[in-house]
This record gives sequence, C-alpha cells and structure tokens, in this order.
Amino acid sequence: MSAIVLLSGGLDSTVCMGIAAQNHSELVAVSMWYGQKHATEVNAARRVAEYYDAEHIVVELPTDPFKMGALTTDEDMPQMTYEEISENQGVSPTYVPFRNGTFLSIATAIALTKGADEVYAGMHAEDASGWAYPDCTPEFLGAMSNAIYVGSYREVRLVTPLMWLDKADVVRKGIELDAPFGLTLSCYEGTQPPCGTCPTCVSRAHAFESLGVRDPLCIE
Amino acid sequence: MSAIVLLSGGLDSTVCMGIAAQNHSELVAVSMWYGQKHATEVNAARRVAEYYDAEHIVVELPTDPFKMGALTTDEDMPQMTYEEISENQGVSPTYVPFRNGTFLSIATAIALTKGADEVYAGMHAEDASGWAYPDCTPEFLGAMSNAIYVGSYREVRLVTPLMWLDKADVVRKGIELDAPFGLTLSCYEGTQPPCGTCPTCVSRAHAFESLGVRDPLCIE
Repeated sequence: MSAIVLLSGGLDSTVCMGIAAQNHSELVAVSMWYGQKHATEVNAARRVAEYYDAEHIVVELPTDPFKMGALTTDEDMPQMTYEEISENQGVSPTYVPFRNGTFLSIATAIALTKGADEVYAGMHAEDASGWAYPDCTPEFLGAMSNAIYVGSYREVRLVTPLMWLDKADVVRKGIELDAPFGLTLSCYEGTQPPCGTCPTCVSRAHAFESLGVRDPLCIE
Repeated sequence: MSAIVLLSGGLDSTVCMGIAAQNHSELVAVSMWYGQKHATEVNAARRVAEYYDAEHIVVELPTDPFKMGALTTDEDMPQMTYEEISENQGVSPTYVPFRNGTFLSIATAIALTKGADEVYAGMHAEDASGWAYPDCTPEFLGAMSNAIYVGSYREVRLVTPLMWLDKADVVRKGIELDAPFGLTLSCYEGTQPPCGTCPTCVSRAHAFESLGVRDPLCIE
C-alpha cells in the first residue's frame, strides 16, 4: 500500500519522509499553502519529494482561517534564544490556529481518495514541550489518530514516528537514514542561508550543535 | 462569547443553528464549498444565516482531496428506499472522504482566529447508524472533540447537540425552536422542489411523515 506523508520541506518532515520510505515503496508527499510567510518551504518540499521519488501534491488551503500569529500575519517574527524557546509555557507566537488538525484531516481525505492506508506526520516532542504547540502533543496526536481511524471506516492510520523524540534525536535519525538535510528549508523567514534568529533556526542550530554535526544549510 | 456553527443549509445544521442561537447572542455560520454537486445548499445556508442574524463565511476548500463518491464525482446519485438506507452497513455511496474532520478543523481554526469558544455541528445518530457515515458517529465526534479541545490550548469546545437524536427527533426539535425549515435545502441534487428520491430527500421525508408534519419544502 502507498502512504501519504505531510511534507513541509523542513527538517522534521524530511526525516519522517525517510522513515516512511523504509516502509512503503510508493509515497505521496503533501505540502500545504496556507498563507505562510515562508512559502519557499514548498520548493524545498518539492526537492525532497523528488529525492524520494514521490508524487508531490501542493494543497491550496483557504488562508483567512489561519491568519493569527507571526507565521501568517504581519506580526514581527519573534527572536528567541534557545533558553527562551525551551522555557516558553503556553501559546507560542508562531502557533497557527489548528493547523495540524487541518493538515491531518486533508491528508486523510487524500489517503482515502488515493487508497493509501497510512498518513505520516513529523510532529516531535520538543515542539510539544511547554504546550508551545498543543497540536504537536501526544494528547492531540492520540485524539487525531483515533478520529482518523474511526472516521475513515478504519482504513487509514496515523503514523507519527518522531512523537517522542527531541530535535537532536530527529537529526540523529536523519543522519542514520541519510536524509537530504541540504535540500530542506526550516527558516520561518524563508531565507537561505537561514536567518539564524527565528525560533526554528535557533532550534535547528541547537540540535546540530548538540550532536557536534555541521548543518549543510549553514555556510561558514 | 461568540460561537461558530457549521451550516450546510440543510435541515440538521439549521436546527443546530437554532440551538446555538439559544446559547449565544453572536453567531458565525460557516459553510464549505468542496466541489459538491448540490452547491446551491450554500445559498440556503446564506438565507438561514440571515434569518438568525449571523455572520456568514463561505470557505472554499481544495476540491481534489474530496473527489470520491456520488456527491463530488460524476458517479450517479443513488436511489434508495428508507429501508435500504436503514439497513445499509458500511460505506455509504454518498460518504465524502474525511469531510467532517476537515470541516471541524477549519471551523476550529476560525474559532481561534475570531475568539469564539464553541464550535457547533449538527451530526446526528441516524447518519451514524450502520456505520454509514463514520464521521458522524459518537466515536468519531468524541475523538475530534478531544483533539479540538487539546489542539486549541483548551480554548475551543465542540458541541454536537444532535449526536444522539434520529432525524425525526431533529425535526421535532426544530419545530420546538421554530427553525426556518422553508429556507433550507437538503436534496443532494440541489433542486427545489426536492427530487424526492436521493437518500437525504428520502430520510427527510420519512422524518416529517413519522411526525405527521408537512415539510414546507414539499409543494403538494
């Protein structure tokens, strides 16, 4: 059976793609356009999908429902240290309203339409910590997993292989799988080289540094 | 606080709107365009929203993910008797892939964006029976309810007041609330007067008949 993979073009979803590729010979990568500032991530997703020889679908969502926070409005992108990110409790300034619920639902619809039996998604524990992104928590993913299974006539299962890993674990897993980190784009500003100061750049840099590994995106 | 109501323009969601109007002075009705044949239901939703003095948002979803079954493809609309509908086990020919999961997710995003604390949705027990529409079952709605609450920082609650009612109960509730049945459109063919032979026309007619009440849409 084929599988659907939610692929933003960032590091986590690329590692998730690598895991899915171990288990499925046929993959359909799904990327979302939802009014995000860093829309160039969709180009990164296309490159990663090509690398894995997967079909690539870009879904254009309505953008008004998601206009809240720094990723989808003209609000300034927060500049946070790794410590500030780690200590953050509650609403993250880069939370997008119920984005992951929407993405997982659309991915499930596509799975049913295409006869795929699994949806892979790369949410991980570091984004869940401190309840920064509640739609990355095990509580949320457990509930969605149930909704997806039940609501699809028990034909589609949600697979979240990174759910219990922190970002450094994710990078380690990606190295193990030879994931194409050089093709990805994480930066919320959508720039290459990465801005280095937005929350996702900071988390990514910390993960590579903690492993003593060079991020191929960072040109010295 | 305001509430979001998923409003297709059919009978069930109109009764749901009536219930929401009892509890909230400010309502935002949300209708979805997803490639359905009976797109005229969106006009009915507009009339119902006006009746309840609610803001009306029409969300244009991508249509490809939902292209499966008789509502969104050129597959013939099934003609079923009430007995055939009641006895149906498993996949309904008019199931739309993970439609309700998607609708509820988008409605939750809108609730967060607009600062509303409840999402009302009119799924009922008769559509859930025989597992015809798994995304109307208490199992599905319970899981989504959990996902919505958790994934929204516990700011949004799903309210499904018709979940345990059959269609005749829904009509009875609508009569009690003086719901504007004459403004609704249920027919999957999108016609007025209703075709009378598609599954939803048959269910609606059976509900009114069982109560000995005249459906204002059916001109003698």
